[in-house]
Amino acid sequence: MELFFLGTGAGMPSKQRNTSSLILNLSAEQMGYWMFDCGEATQHQLLRTSIKPRKINKIFITHLHGDHIFGLPGFLGSRSFLGGDEELTIYGPVGIKEWIMTSLRLTKTHLTYPLKIEEIQEGSIFEDDRFKVSAKELEHVIECFGFRVEQKPLPGKLLVDKAFEAGVPKGPLLKRLKDGEDIELADGRIVYSKDVTGDAQKGFTVAILGDTKYCSAAIELADEADILIHEATFDNETGDLAKDYGHSTVGDAAQTAKGANVKALIANHISARFMPGDITSLKEQGRAIFPNIHIAEDFSHFEWKNEQLIKK
Amino acid sequence: MELFFLGTGAGMPSKQRNTSSLILNLSAEQMGYWMFDCGEATQHQLLRTSIKPRKINKIFITHLHGDHIFGLPGFLGSRSFLGGDEELTIYGPVGIKEWIMTSLRLTKTHLTYPLKIEEIQEGSIFEDDRFKVSAKELEHVIECFGFRVEQKPLPGKLLVDKAFEAGVPKGPLLKRLKDGEDIELADGRIVYSKDVTGDAQKGFTVAILGDTKYCSAAIELADEADILIHEATFDNETGDLAKDYGHSTVGDAAQTAKGANVKALIANHISARFMPGDITSLKEQGRAIFPNIHIAEDFSHFEWKNEQLIKK
Ligand SMILES: [Zn+2]
Ligand SMILES: [Zn+2]
Repeated sequence: MELFFLGTGAGMPSKQRNTSSLILNLSAEQMGYWMFDCGEATQHQLLRTSIKPRKINKIFITHLHGDHIFGLPGFLGSRSFLGGDEELTIYGPVGIKEWIMTSLRLTKTHLTYPLKIEEIQEGSIFEDDRFKVSAKELEHVIECFGFRVEQKPLPGKLLVDKAFEAGVPKGPLLKRLKDGEDIELADGRIVYSKDVTGDAQKGFTVAILGDTKYCSAAIELADEADILIHEATFDNETGDLAKDYGHSTVGDAAQTAKGANVKALIANHISARFMPGDITSLKEQGRAIFPNIHIAEDFSHFEWKNEQLIKK
Repeated sequence: MELFFLGTGAGMPSKQRNTSSLILNLSAEQMGYWMFDCGEATQHQLLRTSIKPRKINKIFITHLHGDHIFGLPGFLGSRSFLGGDEELTIYGPVGIKEWIMTSLRLTKTHLTYPLKIEEIQEGSIFEDDRFKVSAKELEHVIECFGFRVEQKPLPGKLLVDKAFEAGVPKGPLLKRLKDGEDIELADGRIVYSKDVTGDAQKGFTVAILGDTKYCSAAIELADEADILIHEATFDNETGDLAKDYGHSTVGDAAQTAKGANVKALIANHISARFMPGDITSLKEQGRAIFPNIHIAEDFSHFEWKNEQLIKK
């Protein structure tokens, strides 16, 4: 699993930071690429990465503020133009469908792939045998969701030596045992999958939140997660503004990470008031509360490997 | 008068060229800045110029294809955020109002300035005592307009020596003569404005066209203009594609410039199929038909001065 930050700014684009978007790369997990939010010029940011629009098969929208969605119609059209033919599903708050359909209709944009738009409520919004995504409403000035992406436990590895000891021959029986099936040998003996496989491996959990002030829903979404991605529009000195505008300080983000007992925190949605030179102090304010904090930049790239978040 | 090209690409952004937008700087003419088309990330391009969004008071939209309008909602919101409080008028085809109003409503974008949206027909779309803008429909795959911006003749300069010879005293009578009024002196003699002022100065005319194949409307819009800005999505070798998609080759653009007898041609809306190295040959193809041709790049900047187009 990898994370690519395409836009880490707040409200408006600046020369340093574009409006919100990030990519969760689940291609190693056979799920493709998932996008979270799609601010204006997200497709421009993608041009500077190796990620192809057609490989993105899900887009999750936290809320309908322009800095989180104004890149959608352009992205949808370009995905078509660049040869995308596989289904794309967009999950977002009520209103997202009207906006996308109005935009496509008036601009006569004809897509070459099936587009599904699911207007979401709190609760489970996607589930298959590998992943589960649930949503919870945060506390912003308009309806705004956070997402919890959970990888389901992976089947334990086949312990080949143990299987041979138990008399299992080379061949298809091994695969069935690995897949969790108990089998009968030619001589009538039963071999139980659990006896010849290791423990199931825990999947990872990442919580990706939209704009919010400090709130209990954020802590619940991130509960015991491996990674929390949380906005930090303000710093401790501008904390009063944060609450007024439905946003968080970097301290709020760190407090949420601590309260939820996550392993790592990545702060994004950084106000343009903070110059590159202010980032160290922003990080220090967060670190005082939650040590394992990163402040994302545009094109920051992280990998989750061996239960560790690695900055690439 | 100056021209700034913000986006000179076709259909989709590329690393070299953004989607369509250009600025006509009429601040020396007391008219502020006018924008023509507003593709996605036009506000990002503006960040790299000294042009402030609040100084732009008119936006002309040629047609509703995404690469010409997807930057509008973001620009409108940022113009507000950056302190714009003066009225902005958008002129564009039927449908532009529904799209903008839907976008602002669903994203809860509240503007701090009055926004007027005028859905246009062929004919005069703006006129005051200094300028006239008229529109004509071109031949594209959807309704698409070209604009002819005409500066009205400037009053001739006051010939001060002649006025004194005619007995006009220093003071307000001079200003009235300059403004075209005939006046009566204290002794009853009449002084005619035309006798103490120079010839009226011709204003400039610039034709700014949307996407089109070669057509007579383009020639009429550009008739005897000083500058024609014309799309050149294709080159002569790909001319068949041009017609199929309602576009022009650089040769078509040059032929229109020649047919309309303009002074200078600037070609824009260049397909991403042309690499920077192909631009010389594109220019040569145009120059064979119409010698005074420029191929616009993003951030190309021209000035119209002493009846000449100067590349800055
Ligand atoms: Zn935001
Ligand atoms: Zn176009």
